[in-house]
Amino acid sequence: MSADAKILFIGDVVGGLGRRTLLRLLPGLVERHRPTFVVVNGENAAGGLGITPKIADELFAAGVDVITLGNHAYHRREILPYLDREQRILRPANYLRSQPGRGTTTVERDGLRLGVVNLSGNVFLQAGRALFPEADAAVNDLRRTTDHILVDVHAEATSEKVGLGWHLDGRVTAVVGTHTHVPTADARVLPGGTAYITDVGMTGPRGGVIGVRKEQAIEAMRTQMPIRFETSDDDPWLMGVLVSCDGPMHATGIEQILLPG
Amino acid sequence: MSADAKILFIGDVVGGLGRRTLLRLLPGLVERHRPTFVVVNGENAAGGLGITPKIADELFAAGVDVITLGNHAYHRREILPYLDREQRILRPANYLRSQPGRGTTTVERDGLRLGVVNLSGNVFLQAGRALFPEADAAVNDLRRTTDHILVDVHAEATSEKVGLGWHLDGRVTAVVGTHTHVPTADARVLPGGTAYITDVGMTGPRGGVIGVRKEQAIEAMRTQMPIRFETSDDDPWLMGVLVSCDGPMHATGIEQILLPG
Amino acid sequence: MSADAKILFIGDVVGGLGRRTLLRLLPGLVERHRPTFVVVNGENAAGGLGITPKIADELFAAGVDVITLGNHAYHRREILPYLDREQRILRPANYLRSQPGRGTTTVERDGLRLGVVNLSGNVFLQAGRALFPEADAAVNDLRRTTDHILVDVHAEATSEKVGLGWHLDGRVTAVVGTHTHVPTADARVLPGGTAYITDVGMTGPRGGVIGVRKEQAIEAMRTQMPIRFETSDDDPWLMGVLVSCDGPMHATGIEQILLPG
Amino acid sequence: MSADAKILFIGDVVGGLGRRTLLRLLPGLVERHRPTFVVVNGENAAGGLGITPKIADELFAAGVDVITLGNHAYHRREILPYLDREQRILRPANYLRSQPGRGTTTVERDGLRLGVVNLSGNVFLQAGRALFPEADAAVNDLRRTTDHILVDVHAEATSEKVGLGWHLDGRVTAVVGTHTHVPTADARVLPGGTAYITDVGMTGPRGGVIGVRKEQAIEAMRTQMPIRFETSDDDPWLMGVLVSCDGPMHATGIEQILLPG
Ligand SMILES: [Fe+2]
Ligand SMILES: [Fe+2]
Ligand SMILES: [Fe+2]
Ligand SMILES: [Fe+2]
Ligand SMILES: [Fe+2]
Ligand SMILES: [Fe+2]
Ligand SMILES: [Fe+2]
Ligand SMILES: [Fe+2]
Repeated sequence: MSADAKILFIGDVVGGLGRRTLLRLLPGLVERHRPTFVVVNGENAAGGLGITPKIADELFAAGVDVITLGNHAYHRREILPYLDREQRILRPANYLRSQPGRGTTTVERDGLRLGVVNLSGNVFLQAGRALFPEADAAVNDLRRTTDHILVDVHAEATSEKVGLGWHLDGRVTAVVGTHTHVPTADARVLPGGTAYITDVGMTGPRGGVIGVRKEQAIEAMRTQMPIRFETSDDDPWLMGVLVSCDGPMHATGIEQILLPG
Repeated sequence: MSADAKILFIGDVVGGLGRRTLLRLLPGLVERHRPTFVVVNGENAAGGLGITPKIADELFAAGVDVITLGNHAYHRREILPYLDREQRILRPANYLRSQPGRGTTTVERDGLRLGVVNLSGNVFLQAGRALFPEADAAVNDLRRTTDHILVDVHAEATSEKVGLGWHLDGRVTAVVGTHTHVPTADARVLPGGTAYITDVGMTGPRGGVIGVRKEQAIEAMRTQMPIRFETSDDDPWLMGVLVSCDGPMHATGIEQILLPG
Repeated sequence: MSADAKILFIGDVVGGLGRRTLLRLLPGLVERHRPTFVVVNGENAAGGLGITPKIADELFAAGVDVITLGNHAYHRREILPYLDREQRILRPANYLRSQPGRGTTTVERDGLRLGVVNLSGNVFLQAGRALFPEADAAVNDLRRTTDHILVDVHAEATSEKVGLGWHLDGRVTAVVGTHTHVPTADARVLPGGTAYITDVGMTGPRGGVIGVRKEQAIEAMRTQMPIRFETSDDDPWLMGVLVSCDGPMHATGIEQILLPG
Repeated sequence: MSADAKILFIGDVVGGLGRRTLLRLLPGLVERHRPTFVVVNGENAAGGLGITPKIADELFAAGVDVITLGNHAYHRREILPYLDREQRILRPANYLRSQPGRGTTTVERDGLRLGVVNLSGNVFLQAGRALFPEADAAVNDLRRTTDHILVDVHAEATSEKVGLGWHLDGRVTAVVGTHTHVPTADARVLPGGTAYITDVGMTGPRGGVIGVRKEQAIEAMRTQMPIRFETSDDDPWLMGVLVSCDGPMHATGIEQILLPG
C-alpha cells in the first residue's frame, strides 16, 4: 500500500482573530490541497494564552485532526481534564510524565497512520525533561506503528530546532518549528527525506507584535514598565506548511503557506 | 536631488567558508543589482566567533561599505583598537559608551548619505543599555544628516525585532534583524515606508547547526556534555536582503536573497 | 563635627505579616540601638508584590527614613505617582531615567546627612542600565554632599553583590544586598571601611518559601504547573543589619539582626 | 542500634588555595568534632572549574568519604571515566542518566550507613531532569537501605533550595545548599528533624569574588568586556556545617563552621 499523503500544519493560532482566520481559510485550503491530515498548534488560541475545551472542540469540528500546544498549554485551568481525556490534543512530550495530557498521538485516515509528536525546547523555556532524548524515545516508539510522523518542536533557540531537524532526518516525515510566531524562509526536505522548517509562524494578527497589540508591546519595551497586553486585531494571516509524502517517513516536498485573512 | 538607492545587506558571515562564499558571490550581486551601499554583519567572520582586523580589511577591500557586529563583537582581542579607529565597523550602539568602538556611522556614495545603526536586543543577550531608547537616540541623531538609515538589530527574541520595526516605521529606511542565523519569511515594506525583516539569516554553512558542525551541535544537545565546536564546512549559502528606496528614509521594496555558494 | 552614626537596615518586608512584624519590633530595636537612620526595603510589602502609598506612609509614620525597592517596584499601579513625588522612597538607580521615581536620596538627622542608593543587578533581572557604572555615578554624586552612603543592591547573583562591595569599599559606608530573602553569614567591614553583607534576608514568614506559602511553592516546583501563590503567614521574623560608623563613609561594625516576630 | 552520628559537610573547594586550606584545617576539625562522615563539594577544586582524578584521590586520602559536584562537574575531561568507576564521587542525580557518573552513593562507618544525594537546581542552571521528582526518587530509594541521608542541592535560586528543604523535611537527615559560594545565616533543624542550610559557602579565597580574583571580576562587570578569570589567592576560609544526628533520618543540630585558613 502507498504511503502517499499530504500533511497540512498550521502555526500558533492567536486569539479570536486567529481562530476566525483559520475557520474562514481552512475549507479553501482543504479543497485546494486535499490534505490527508490537518495539524494545528493551538497554544495561543484562547485570548492569546492557552486553549479551552470549547475552542479545541471547535477546531476539531472544523476538520483539524490533531492540536499541538507549547509553553502556554496549561494557562487555562479548564483545559486540564480535557488534556487527559482527549487523545487528539498534545502538550510537549518532554514535559513531566505527571503533567496533564500526553505528548504523542496517532490518527488514521485513508488507511494511513500519522504519529504526531509535540516537543518543547530546553533553552529559554521550562520543560521537565530533555528535548533530544525524549524526541528519540517518542519517535522510536511511534515508528513501529505509523506510516508518517510529524514533530512540532516548540522552541525559542534556532540551534535546538535546526539540530533536531538534522537529528531526526530520515526517521520522521516532518519536523516543524513553532513558538517565535515569525515564519522562517528555510522550508526544505533534508537529504534523508524529512521535511523541515525552523518556524511555521502564527495564524493571527501580523499587524501586532507576535500577536500582541503593537502599541502595548512597544510601550512595554520602550518604557520597561509593566503593561497589560491584549491581542491585536490588525491584519490577520494564516501561516502553515503543506508537506507532501511519497512513502513511509519520507517527504517529497514542503510548501510554505502564507495567506492574508 | 533624488534619494533613490539600493542597499544590499548580508547576514552574519560565519567562518572561512562564509567569507569565501561572500567574496565569491558578492561581485555577481553587485553587477546584477548595482547596490548603492553594501552592509555586512561580520560578528562570526573569524572562525565563527568575532572578527579580526585582517578579515575586516578584506571585507572592505571587497566592496563592503559598513560592517556590523553583535554579541561576539569582542571575542578576538586584536579587534579592539581597530574598532576604535575604523569608522566603518560598528558594534551595538546600546552597549556601554565605555566599550570599544561605536554604534553608528555614516557613509556617502553618489551624493547620498547612509546612516547605519547596529543595536543589540536586551532579552537573552547582554547589552549595557536599553534597546528602544538607544534606537531612538541614534535614529534621531542620524536623521538630521543622512538620506537613508539602515538599522541592524542583533537579537534573539522576535518580539524585540518586530516591535522595533513597528517603532521605527516611517523614521528609517530599513530595520533588518540578525543573530538567529535563520532567515525569516516576513520581509516587507511596512506601511510607513520602512523595509523590514526579522532575520536576514547567515552567510555560511547551511549544512551545520547555525554555523556549527552538525554532529558536534547535536552531540552537545543530545548528551548535555561540554563539546568543542568547530565551524561546519557543509553547504555554503549567502543570505541577505536588497532594499530599494525612492526617497529619504523611504523604501519601496525589500527582496530576499538566498543564494547557494 | 563627628560623623558617628548608626544605620539600621531592614530586609524585604513581605506582606501584611511582614509589615506587622516590622511595626511590632521596630520600636524595641530603636530603643535598644538608637539608630540615627532607619532604611527598609519594601518591595514586597503589599501582599508580597510591590508597595502602595498607604503602606509607604505607614512605614514612614513608624519611623522609617527611607524605603528602597527592587524588581517588584512597579507591581502596584497606584504607587507610580507617589514614587515621583515622595523623595524618601527609591527604585533602583540603574533603571531607565524615564521610569517613575528616583534611585538616590539624602536624609538628614542630628546634623548628619545620609545618602541612600538603590541598585538592581543585571544578571537574571531586568534593569535598563548597567549596575557598576551607575553605582559609580550615584556614589560620586552623593559623596560631595553626604556624610554616609548606604547602598542597597537588589540582585540575584552573588558575584554582582560581592563584586560591588569590593568595588565601593572605602567610598561608601555600607553595601547591603537584598532580593534572595535569605540572610547570608558574611556580614563584615571590608578593609577599606565599608560594611558589607551579601543579603540581609527578609522581614516576613520564615515558614514559607521566601515568602510564599510553602505548600504552594513546593507544588509549583514539584509539578511544574502554574499555581497561584499566596503569602505565607507562618513563623514571622525580622531580618536586618545595624551598621555602626565613626567617620565619613566609614563603618566600624555591622551587626546582623535576626529576630523572631 | 543507635543511629547517632555527626556529618561534616564542606562547601565548594575552590582551586589550589581551597584544597590547601581544606587539607590544613580538616585534621583539626576531625579531631575536635569526631565526625562519622565527611562530605565535600569539589566542583571547583581544579583551578576553580571542575576536578581531576588526582585531586579527588587527594581528597579521599585526606579522609573525605564522599565528594559532590555541580554545574562544573564535567569541566575537566580526564574526570569522566573516573566518575563512572569511583563510587564515592557524585554528580547531580537529576542530570541525564546517560551522563557520566552517578548521583547517589552510600558509605558505611561504625555500623552506620549514610546515603548521599547530589542534585542540581533547574532555575538558571541546566539539568536534564527535574529537581523535585528526582529528589523524591533518590530519597525514596536510599531510605530503604540507609540510616542517614545527606542531600547537597547545588542551585542558584533560593526558592528551589528552601522549597526542597521543606519538601524533604522529616525524610532525610540534612539538606545543604551549595553553588553561590556565600554562606547563609539560616542553618537550623526544621520541625520534622531535617538539618537545613540554604548555602554552605565555599572553601577558598574570601578575598575574591566568589573565588575569582576581585580585580578581574570587577573589571568584567564594570566594563562588560570579556576578561580572563584566575582564582584569587586572597584570604582563604573553610566553610561548612556539622550536622548532629540522634536517630535514623533525624538531626538534632546543625552548626555552621566558618574558619579562616
Ligand atoms: Fe505561541
Ligand atoms: Fe510558545
Ligand atoms: Fe551571529
Ligand atoms: Fe549573535
Ligand atoms: Fe524581595
Ligand atoms: Fe526582589
Ligand atoms: Fe561552586
Ligand atoms: Fe556551581
